[in-house]
Amino acid sequence: MTTGERASRPGGRTARVRADVLAAVEAELAEHGYDGLTIDGVAARSGVHRTTVYRRWKTVAGLLVDLLRAGLDDSWEPADTGSLEGDLLKLNREVHTALTERPSITQAVIAASFRTPEAAEALTAFWADRYRRSAVVVRRAVVRGEVDPSIDPHQVVMTATAPLYHQLVLLRQPLSRASADRYARAAALSAQSGIGSSHA
Amino acid sequence: MTTGERASRPGGRTARVRADVLAAVEAELAEHGYDGLTIDGVAARSGVHRTTVYRRWKTVAGLLVDLLRAGLDDSWEPADTGSLEGDLLKLNREVHTALTERPSITQAVIAASFRTPEAAEALTAFWADRYRRSAVVVRRAVVRGEVDPSIDPHQVVMTATAPLYHQLVLLRQPLSRASADRYARAAALSAQSGIGSSHA
Repeated sequence: MTTGERASRPGGRTARVRADVLAAVEAELAEHGYDGLTIDGVAARSGVHRTTVYRRWKTVAGLLVDLLRAGLDDSWEPADTGSLEGDLLKLNREVHTALTERPSITQAVIAASFRTPEAAEALTAFWADRYRRSAVVVRRAVVRGEVDPSIDPHQVVMTATAPLYHQLVLLRQPLSRASADRYARAAALSAQSGIGSSHA
Repeated sequence: MTTGERASRPGGRTARVRADVLAAVEAELAEHGYDGLTIDGVAARSGVHRTTVYRRWKTVAGLLVDLLRAGLDDSWEPADTGSLEGDLLKLNREVHTALTERPSITQAVIAASFRTPEAAEALTAFWADRYRRSAVVVRRAVVRGEVDPSIDPHQVVMTATAPLYHQLVLLRQPLSRASADRYARAAALSAQSGIGSSHA
């Protein structure tokens, strides 16, 4: 779920330049937040010439959008631990780390999404993709016979993860790793009890 | 849960001026968003002299903070329908309306909280108070014998409401009223099944 994955580097100077620039965008975002992100800062940190960065990415928003777009091409997938509870625990710990680490690139990207519509759009696409990929943890549980096939995978993943985002990002209150675990376990138990299936 | 309640008007010119100004802040926020909120616009709409507004509220952030502070003194409480499921359904419908109505003051206030730290702090205090008040729906369910006393009231209310905020505010995806109902029902059923209690 994190935005921390970088585009892979399948050779080629163009791909290498992009990887270097996006790594610098992440580092600058983490250090200074979106307000402190500048094309010059990214150029200096990446070692890529500023005219190249200006020509290719044009604006600070353009850099952020490309960082999120790179996330669409990465190989992230939820861990396969062999049980729905285990998979949701792993997922929630990943979300918890991404939102509580300091500095948090995820928090910086969320803040940016309330400042520029391009960032909002790119973040929406990024998350839609991440939630689509995450649904596999429920489909695997169906195959194992752990949960009923009528269960809505998106609802299960949302029930586990949404409280972390809501409490840490919007309510701006602390949330322990133990609480993150509790939400994951409750979501797994609910799904296994058939809560959220179309028969319930 | 909405930010739409206005400070009561217990007589007095000062209280009346405040109520008029805060009503204008809401209307301007709803129409133009936080970026379009100006002291002059609020003064014009409220009919209160602009030097009075400048003297008392100083900045646009000051106006927003006072709007949220007024919410702390209002009489909002969750409806008492006689069942946990009914209470959570009502709560989720209220949140759903607040986040999907156009214009949405709640969405405007959330966006503002990512622009000024004062707004973030005031929104945090507002929501902490709303979630504290909402916990009564679970305590009533305990008294009725619907749920185990070891259940965590905050976890139950978060399980019901967090997916609405996450999907409509951060993921920026549509969420139907039927889905809002489903999350409320699932949270009630989970609590009644003892999921989220310290024994579970």
